[in-house]
Amino acid sequence: MRTAESPACFDGERGSSTVNTAEQTCGGFLDALASKAPVPGGGGASALVGALGAALCTMVGNYTVGKKKYAAVEADVRVLMEKAEDLRGRLLALVDQDAAAFEPLSKAYSIPKDDPQRDAVLERCLRDAAAAPMEILRLSCEVIGLHKEMLEKGSLLMLSDVGTGVIFCRSALYGAWLNVKVNTKSIADQAFARAMNQEADDLVSQYGNVADQVYQSVMRRFS
Amino acid sequence: MRTAESPACFDGERGSSTVNTAEQTCGGFLDALASKAPVPGGGGASALVGALGAALCTMVGNYTVGKKKYAAVEADVRVLMEKAEDLRGRLLALVDQDAAAFEPLSKAYSIPKDDPQRDAVLERCLRDAAAAPMEILRLSCEVIGLHKEMLEKGSLLMLSDVGTGVIFCRSALYGAWLNVKVNTKSIADQAFARAMNQEADDLVSQYGNVADQVYQSVMRRFS
Repeated sequence: MRTAESPACFDGERGSSTVNTAEQTCGGFLDALASKAPVPGGGGASALVGALGAALCTMVGNYTVGKKKYAAVEADVRVLMEKAEDLRGRLLALVDQDAAAFEPLSKAYSIPKDDPQRDAVLERCLRDAAAAPMEILRLSCEVIGLHKEMLEKGSLLMLSDVGTGVIFCRSALYGAWLNVKVNTKSIADQAFARAMNQEADDLVSQYGNVADQVYQSVMRRFS
Repeated sequence: MRTAESPACFDGERGSSTVNTAEQTCGGFLDALASKAPVPGGGGASALVGALGAALCTMVGNYTVGKKKYAAVEADVRVLMEKAEDLRGRLLALVDQDAAAFEPLSKAYSIPKDDPQRDAVLERCLRDAAAAPMEILRLSCEVIGLHKEMLEKGSLLMLSDVGTGVIFCRSALYGAWLNVKVNTKSIADQAFARAMNQEADDLVSQYGNVADQVYQSVMRRFS
């Protein structure tokens, strides 16, 4: 919760962004990513890659439901699809949320060094800028968990898409991890930074392995 | 080269696709990927993830050139940026090329099993369907090589984007690898399938390691 003692990080500009990645063309997003504009960057792009991984989970479900062979697991697969669609939407929204949190930070760095508010504003901006990739990291883990279950229950004809989807989520996870670290590295509140890094490290250790296992399990069927 | 003995794979329909991923919205691409439509699938999505990785390479370059600190490597960085932009364009085009090659294959499977042309048409479609992810795989390796050099020459302030870009390309590589295998597995010409698998396996072995090394090198600076 923000108080007078915890200066807001350019709240007035937050949410005023007109960027809507869902409506932007793929070519336009790529151009903006490649450009010198401060956003989108690696964090937002990680959210998009995670959303691509979630979409592949839904696709596998779409080719599984309605088939007699998979009738016994159809209810489970429908639940996986609902969760994947929810996560896809949240990850796509996080592309814009990451941009909304990063722009104020890039402006905060230009506050004159003798401004007494500078450190507090920077600290708040860094926390906000770390929060978006941290959430991308958490949601990527959730999608990896869905792919793990889809590997067991989804149509065998769609195995390569489970493997491709899970490896996308692994890279979203690792991309978000770097973008958490790049912000926590500069946060003055060491206890806050350590706690966030610890959560990130633990999730990457656990779900990075799950993703590798799911991918390798798929690859073994094609080797 | 196609001859009368090597039946074309629905050549009449090839290239008639109106899909232009560059012009499609990100939300629309994700919806199409999640849907039961035969394309886009994991192969095309891998090309898009590779293009995102290439865009991050260009972005790092954009924040490096023009800085006194990096004047000594500016010419090299500009070459890296040119190569990254070329690869980004080719990878984005491969999203549509993968779709154009996959749709005929999905139709070939519906040819009546007693049709004497079925096996030859299927074989040609499988080769074409494998060629697109094989090219995505090759180009992902090239972008990984650019990130390796950018790690040495790019702005230190952009390190996290080198790590994020290279991990995207790693997942594009692994995604494309699965999509090569899923097609070569069904190709009747064993020598052709073996040669393509061998090239893919060798590239993944080599460049998967390079990508991991670049990522770990970046992560070490933040740990």
